Amino acid sequence: MERNIYLSNTDLEDAVSLFMEKISEKDLQIGIEEIDTSDSTGRTTAKPIFAALSSPNHNAAAMDGIMVVADHTYDATETTPATLRPGTDFDYINTGHLIRDPYDAVIMIEDIVELGDGCVRITAPASPWQHIRPIGEDIVAGEMILPQNHLMRPMDIGAVLSGGRPRIQVYERIRVGIIPTGNEITDNYGSLAKGSTFDTNSWTFKAIVEQLGGIGERISPVADDYDLLKAAILDMAGRNHIVVVNAGSSAGSRDYTAKLIEDLGEIVLHGIAIKPGKPTILGFVSGKPVIGVPGYPGSAYLVFEEIVSPVIRKLRHLEPEKPARAEAVVSRRVVSSLKYREYVRVTLGMVGGKLIATPLSRGAGATMALVRADGLVVIPKNSEGYEAGEKVPVALSTDMETIANTLVSIGSHDVIMDLLGNIMARDLAGEVGRAIRLSSAHVGSMGGIMALKRGEAHIAPIHLLDEENGEYNVSYVKRFLGDDFTLIKGVRREQGIMAARGNPKNIRSVADFARQDVVFVNRQKGSGTRILTDHLLRQQGIETGLIKGYDREMTTHMAVAAAVESGTADAGVGVYSAAAAMDLEFISIGFEEYDFAVAKKYIGSELLESFLNALHSMEFRKILAELGGYSMDDNY
Amino acid sequence: MERNIYLSNTDLEDAVSLFMEKISEKDLQIGIEEIDTSDSTGRTTAKPIFAALSSPNHNAAAMDGIMVVADHTYDATETTPATLRPGTDFDYINTGHLIRDPYDAVIMIEDIVELGDGCVRITAPASPWQHIRPIGEDIVAGEMILPQNHLMRPMDIGAVLSGGRPRIQVYERIRVGIIPTGNEITDNYGSLAKGSTFDTNSWTFKAIVEQLGGIGERISPVADDYDLLKAAILDMAGRNHIVVVNAGSSAGSRDYTAKLIEDLGEIVLHGIAIKPGKPTILGFVSGKPVIGVPGYPGSAYLVFEEIVSPVIRKLRHLEPEKPARAEAVVSRRVVSSLKYREYVRVTLGMVGGKLIATPLSRGAGATMALVRADGLVVIPKNSEGYEAGEKVPVALSTDMETIANTLVSIGSHDVIMDLLGNIMARDLAGEVGRAIRLSSAHVGSMGGIMALKRGEAHIAPIHLLDEENGEYNVSYVKRFLGDDFTLIKGVRREQGIMAARGNPKNIRSVADFARQDVVFVNRQKGSGTRILTDHLLRQQGIETGLIKGYDREMTTHMAVAAAVESGTADAGVGVYSAAAAMDLEFISIGFEEYDFAVAKKYIGSELLESFLNALHSMEFRKILAELGGYSMDDNY
Repeated sequence: MERNIYLSNTDLEDAVSLFMEKISEKDLQIGIEEIDTSDSTGRTTAKPIFAALSSPNHNAAAMDGIMVVADHTYDATETTPATLRPGTDFDYINTGHLIRDPYDAVIMIEDIVELGDGCVRITAPASPWQHIRPIGEDIVAGEMILPQNHLMRPMDIGAVLSGGRPRIQVYERIRVGIIPTGNEITDNYGSLAKGSTFDTNSWTFKAIVEQLGGIGERISPVADDYDLLKAAILDMAGRNHIVVVNAGSSAGSRDYTAKLIEDLGEIVLHGIAIKPGKPTILGFVSGKPVIGVPGYPGSAYLVFEEIVSPVIRKLRHLEPEKPARAEAVVSRRVVSSLKYREYVRVTLGMVGGKLIATPLSRGAGATMALVRADGLVVIPKNSEGYEAGEKVPVALSTDMETIANTLVSIGSHDVIMDLLGNIMARDLAGEVGRAIRLSSAHVGSMGGIMALKRGEAHIAPIHLLDEENGEYNVSYVKRFLGDDFTLIKGVRREQGIMAARGNPKNIRSVADFARQDVVFVNRQKGSGTRILTDHLLRQQGIETGLIKGYDREMTTHMAVAAAVESGTADAGVGVYSAAAAMDLEFISIGFEEYDFAVAKKYIGSELLESFLNALHSMEFRKILAELGGYSMDDNY
Repeated sequence: MERNIYLSNTDLEDAVSLFMEKISEKDLQIGIEEIDTSDSTGRTTAKPIFAALSSPNHNAAAMDGIMVVADHTYDATETTPATLRPGTDFDYINTGHLIRDPYDAVIMIEDIVELGDGCVRITAPASPWQHIRPIGEDIVAGEMILPQNHLMRPMDIGAVLSGGRPRIQVYERIRVGIIPTGNEITDNYGSLAKGSTFDTNSWTFKAIVEQLGGIGERISPVADDYDLLKAAILDMAGRNHIVVVNAGSSAGSRDYTAKLIEDLGEIVLHGIAIKPGKPTILGFVSGKPVIGVPGYPGSAYLVFEEIVSPVIRKLRHLEPEKPARAEAVVSRRVVSSLKYREYVRVTLGMVGGKLIATPLSRGAGATMALVRADGLVVIPKNSEGYEAGEKVPVALSTDMETIANTLVSIGSHDVIMDLLGNIMARDLAGEVGRAIRLSSAHVGSMGGIMALKRGEAHIAPIHLLDEENGEYNVSYVKRFLGDDFTLIKGVRREQGIMAARGNPKNIRSVADFARQDVVFVNRQKGSGTRILTDHLLRQQGIETGLIKGYDREMTTHMAVAAAVESGTADAGVGVYSAAAAMDLEFISIGFEEYDFAVAKKYIGSELLESFLNALHSMEFRKILAELGGYSMDDNY
C-alpha cells in the first residue's frame, strides 16, 4: 500500500511566489499572433500600438451648419447682419465632413437664417477654426494608443481602428489542459451508479479558464492507474501551457499525481498551509507548470482561484485579479486551527445598516456553499478564528448593491423559501428599479429567533409549538423578542413520520422509534421539528436514550428524507413536501404553523414588501397546491 | 433641405423608464433554449433548476482511511487498543468512495497503526457516521439549486452538474443589429481617403454586446440614403431583438434616422438632456426597440452604456449593471450648462493619500479619452459644475488597486512619456507584486508645476527656460515649488521649427513667422515650447500681433506637427521627434532640458522607483537613439 506523504506546510504566498519564479525561469514560450482589431476584446497586446493615421484625418466640421471663410464674416453683427451667397461665401456641411478650401470656420445651423433664395444671413462673425476638429485632434499619427500588456476592452477597439490599425499583435490564448481523475469519477451525466460521483470540477475549471480568455482542454476522467495517468499528463503537457490534474493529490492509496509529477519532471512543493486546499501539488512536466488540485469542489475551486488563475494571468502578462473588499460583522463564531490559513465562504446582507457575514457550511464538498457565497473571509494562520460580532475583511464575489437589495432570512428550513425567492427574483429582475434577492439560511426556528434578536436577519421563518397552550410561534416571539417584533402569518404545513417506501418496518407513531429493529434519524436541537418530536415522545412517555440514531442530527427536512431514502435510517420526522420529493411513506402527525417573525421596523420596507408580494401571490398558492401538504388562509 | 428638429430634452431616467415600459408592453419574444450545463457560463436561467439527484448519491468516505462498524470499536482506548482484521472488521477506503454495508464509520489513516500482517490497531472508538458524508450532504434531490433569471457562473456549472442536470434551459442570446451610417464613413481599413472617417463605433458596440452575452450583427456602413437605410433597418429589425442605428440622429441635412423610425414605426422620443448624447432617438420598428445613437465616439459610447446596455440586460432578465463608486477630488474646474446632465471622463490617481480626478478632454470625438479614462463624473442638470478641489462621486472603470499603483505625471508633453510608461507596464506586469502604471496628462510645463504644488501629481515633466541665466528648470522649481521639491534629471531634446516637406516657404528662423505669406500655429500659454517661442521672438524683436495664427493654440508637439503636415499652417515650434514622426522639415533651434520636478517625499517610493528604473534602463537609451533628437547623460 503506497501512500504519498506530504510534509510541506508552506504559506500560500511563499508557495505562489516560488512557483511563479520557477515559471519565469522556465521561460515558457507564449506565442504572439496578429488578429483583427475588431475581434480583440479580452486579448493582451504583445506590442505597444502606435497610430498609423491621424484621427480625424482631415479638418472636419464639428457641428452641422455652413462652412465659411472667417475673414469674410468679420463685419457681421446683430445690427448689421451679413448675407452669404452659396458656393462662393459658404457651403452647407454636416458634422464630420471635410472642410474644403478656402473655408476655415463653421457656423452652426442654429445660428443662420435661411433667406429662401439660397442665401443665408449671419449676425455674428466666425473666428478662424471655430467648430472645426483639426486633423489629429483625437489621435495623431505616431502617437502610442495603447501600451504593451494591455487587456483589450471594447473602447480600445474603437481607438485602435481610428488610429488606422485594423490588425494588432496579441499574445496567443493560454491553453490549460484539465485532467479529472479517479475510478469513482464519471462524466456519463445520463445516470449515476451508486458510489460514483459526477465529474463537475473540470467543467468549472474550463469555464474559469475561458472567462480568463484562455482555452480549456478537458478530457474524460482518467482512472486511478499509473500508466494511464502518465500518458494523459505527458499528452496534455505536450500541447498546453499549463496542466491541471484534479485530485489524486492526497494520501489515498491510489493518489498517483505527486509520484507521477516527480517521475516525469519535478515537484516544487506538495502541501500548502491553507484549508481547504492543503494537499495541493505544484510541479513541472516537460517544462510546463502542472498543478495537482484537490478533489473536493470547495478545495478545488479555492486552489484554482488562488493558484491556477494567477498563473494563467501571469502567462497572459496581466496582474493578479483583485476582488473588491468590504468590512463585515460575522454573525457566528468561526473557529480555525492555528496551523493553516482558513477560508470561509459567507453570505452577506445589510441588516439595520450593518453588513452581516454569515458563514456557510465549511464541508469541503460544499458545492452549494460556492453557489450561495457572496464573499470570502480569510482567517490568518496562527489565529483561532473570529468571535461572533467581530469585524472582518471580506473579499466580495457579489456586488454591494445586490447585497443591499437582499432580504436576509435566517431560521427554519422549508422548500417554500426557495420558491418564494424564485418568485421575487423573477418578477422584479429586468424591470427598471430594484430586484430583491432572498438569502435564506437554515439554522432552525430557535436559531432564527436568536439571529433576529441579534440583528442579523430581517425575517425568521419559525414553527415553534408552545406545549402549554398548543399554539404556534406567538408566545415565542413575545418571550424571546419582545414588542419591537411581530409575526407575519405564513402557511400551515403537514408534519409526519417519513419511512421507506412501502413502510417495511410498519412504523405507525413516534413510539415505534424506540423499537430494537428501528434506526431513527433526528433533527438538530432548536429546530421546530425537533421540539415537536421531543414533545410527542414525552407525551407518549418514550425514553430518548432507547432510540437508536437519536444523536444523529440533520439540519433540513430533505437531509432527513435522504437518510431514510438511502436506508441508513428507518424513520425520521419532517414535512410532507420532503417525503413526497423523495417518494417516501408519510405518516401524518398533523398541521403546524410556519410563520415569519420580523422586526417591526422593516414593515413597509421594499425588502419586506417584495417578500409579502410573493407570499400573497396567486402563483405561490398554486405552487403550494401542487406541492401538497400545505394550506394557507384565504383572507390575505 | 429637410432637417430634423428634436425638441425633446427629456431627463435620462425618464427616457429610459418610458422606453423600458414600452418595451415591456411590446412583449418581445425572447426564446428559451436547452443547452449543455457545461457550456452555460454567462447565460441566464429561464427556469429554476431543481436537483434531479442528491450529491453525494451515496454515503461516502470524507477522509482517506478505513471503514469500520462503530459498534465494534467502542472498547478501544489508548491503554487497551483494539486490533481489527481486514475484510471482516475493516476495509481500506479513499476519500469520496462508497461506504459499504455493514460499515458505518471511517477512521482516518493517520489514526491507525498498520501491524504488517494486514491487521490494524486503533486506540480510540469510532462514533457512528464519523468522517462519512451522508447522501445529499451537499445537494438533496428536489432542492432548488438556482432560481430563474440567474446569471450562470463557473461555480454554478459544478453545482448544477452535481445535482444531475447536464442540460438546462436558458434564454436565447439577445441579438443586436448594428447599422453604421454616413457617406463619409468607411470600413475599408486598408486606406483612408481624405474626408473619410473609419467606422469604429460599430465594432466597439459589437464587442460590448458580446461582453453582455449577446450576438452583435454588424453590417457595413450604409450611405445617407433614405431607401438604403430603410431597407437596412427593416432587414435588421426582422432578425434581431434590438437595432442600433449609429448616427443620422442629429440635425444634419442627411440625418434620416428619426424620419425613418417615424415612417416605419414609432418614435418614443428624440433628444435627451445629457451631454454628450443629446440627439439620441428611442423608437420601435416592427415591434423591436430601435435606438438612434449619435455619431461621435464619446457620445456613442455613453449612450450605448446608459441606454442600449440596460435594454440588453433587461431582455436578458438581468438587473442594470452597477459600477463601483468612489469619492474623488477634482483637480480642475469642470463647468457645465444648466440645461443638461453632463458626463466627464476622468483619470484617477492616489496622490498624497487623496484620490484625485483629472478631467479628460470633453471633445465629443475624444476616442482617446475613453481609452484613458479611469472613471466617469456626472454633473447633474441645473448645476454649473464643480470647482477645483471639490469632492465628487466617480463611477469607476478602473479598479482601485490599479489606481493606487499609478504614478501620476502632469506637465509638458513628450512622446517619451508614453514610451517610459510602456517599459514600466511591460517589465513589471505579470510578476507577482505590483506593476506601476504611468498616467500622463499634458498641460504644459507651468501647468505641471502648479499641479505638483496643489498635490495633484507625483511628478511634473518640465522644460522651462530661465531667460535671465539661460538655465532650464532649476529656478522654476525653486521659485514656484520650494524646498519640499526637487528635480530629477531627464533628457536633452532638440527643439526646432517644423515646416512642410521641402520647406516650400523657405522658413529659416522665428523671424519668418511674421511674414505675410506664412501662417503660424502656436502652443498653449504656460507650455515650455510657448515660453521658448516667445523668448526667441522677443530676442529678434518680432511683434506677435503681426504673426498670422499666433492665437491658434495646440496642446502637444504632435498636434502642431499635424497642423503643419495638413497644410493649415506653414510653421510651428516643436521637438525633433514630432517632426520626424510626420516627416516634416525641421530647422533646429537648439537643445533644451526636459526634466522631472518631484515632491521629495516620493523619492524612494515604489511608484517613483519604477519610473526611474525605466528612465535609466538601457532599453530607454536605445529608444532615444532610434527616435533621434534626444541625448542623455551617461553618469546615471
